[in-house]
Amino acid sequence: MTKRPLILVTNDDGITAPGIRSLIRVMNSIGDVIVVAPDSPQSAMGHAITINNTLYCKKEHIDNGPQEEYSTSGTPADCVKLAVHELLDRKPDLCVSGINHGSNSSINVIYSGTMSAAIEAGMSEIPAIGFSLLNYNWDADFSAAESYIKTLCLKVLEKGLQKGIVLNVNVPNLAKKDIKGLKVCRQANANWVEKFDKRQSPMGRNYYWLTGEFINHDKGKDTDEWALKEGYISVVPVQFDLTAHQYLSELNNWDLNG
Amino acid sequence: MTKRPLILVTNDDGITAPGIRSLIRVMNSIGDVIVVAPDSPQSAMGHAITINNTLYCKKEHIDNGPQEEYSTSGTPADCVKLAVHELLDRKPDLCVSGINHGSNSSINVIYSGTMSAAIEAGMSEIPAIGFSLLNYNWDADFSAAESYIKTLCLKVLEKGLQKGIVLNVNVPNLAKKDIKGLKVCRQANANWVEKFDKRQSPMGRNYYWLTGEFINHDKGKDTDEWALKEGYISVVPVQFDLTAHQYLSELNNWDLNG
Repeated sequence: MTKRPLILVTNDDGITAPGIRSLIRVMNSIGDVIVVAPDSPQSAMGHAITINNTLYCKKEHIDNGPQEEYSTSGTPADCVKLAVHELLDRKPDLCVSGINHGSNSSINVIYSGTMSAAIEAGMSEIPAIGFSLLNYNWDADFSAAESYIKTLCLKVLEKGLQKGIVLNVNVPNLAKKDIKGLKVCRQANANWVEKFDKRQSPMGRNYYWLTGEFINHDKGKDTDEWALKEGYISVVPVQFDLTAHQYLSELNNWDLNG
Repeated sequence: MTKRPLILVTNDDGITAPGIRSLIRVMNSIGDVIVVAPDSPQSAMGHAITINNTLYCKKEHIDNGPQEEYSTSGTPADCVKLAVHELLDRKPDLCVSGINHGSNSSINVIYSGTMSAAIEAGMSEIPAIGFSLLNYNWDADFSAAESYIKTLCLKVLEKGLQKGIVLNVNVPNLAKKDIKGLKVCRQANANWVEKFDKRQSPMGRNYYWLTGEFINHDKGKDTDEWALKEGYISVVPVQFDLTAHQYLSELNNWDLNG
């Protein structure tokens, strides 16, 4: 690539979140950056899009960096659609989403607004990566992740990604000296066992808060959960063709029209 | 199965939508039915869940059927979580979602609230099916689909589904005599090319409406889009392990830590 790459940056924690500001700094050292991100937190939005409501979009000046920035009233997936199909003159060379405040490893990829943005970019055949740090705090330290993120983005810009695949990257909450490097993994077979905290409003209406416990059933040493526990940054290739191809022949044996 | 199966019914168009009322009627002929569905439309919510807001839940009496019903202020995925982990004493034998007013074939599965409910049930190891009719109208005729839905649900109750897999079923908008039967398919490789309709509010703020054109790049005769065009009901096995297993070795060759 002879000219500077065009990089689209988004997230789900909102355009002022420390995680995206860190990601913007790293991307400014690689290419020309456009930021299109939600104007407020959109965590756990999955792959929601705005079809029954208006979508606002506003130019922003948040710091003195060289990047161009827009906030929107939409979801992470909306931000990518708006960037690609309305705001940009050409397709970005890379889309990065994050750095999310909190894990998107294992089954959390399904609920993740961060990853839905990366997947939306992948659908438009833009190489895309979602980044998350295993620390929910607003004042989390993203600096340890930055050099790894830069290396991986340069690699993806050089090599591209196969059509239909995006990367889900999770970073353990460790000092840089304690991070052992990047590890390619599969998604661990884990899930949430929910508990609902039932309460009553001052008006007498029952309501619930969703709480839960994350249970990892997977003993494999090739999973993202294992890698993160061992101090590695996990890199999971994620596909958005959801067909269970290996199950087609079994279903065909059912004789559904018999 | 000697006793009547317990069937959880949900959707994303809201508890009063004609599509779910049709599905409830069919399920009442098979088993004991509990309905937990959103109190308002939640289309295109993807796999969103409610973690930063209260979740209301209210017992409902909508018709004189034998089913037990609850509406919630949440998303389809919330409804399944609440049913499984709070409202029900035992795990349902089957979860059905829909019948959605409009297609969830091909890439639309990613955006689909209907399918997110089925996937959420699948994560809790409940056999689950999402149903959609290719007609967006509120007064669409769901009757042609009903006997096919009953047959498929009885088959799934008899045989179960492999762990990690749920079914995505789309029904063409045809009279019953014109439906050729059920066909097991893969998800077509198609996507939306978006156009944004830019407008200005009376207050002078720019906003957008998302519009778009669905483009099917896939010429295969084993896809859901092909089957639906030919007059079949498409049945796609969907997985929620998003790992692109076939790409792990390629990524490992990148020498990410080199």
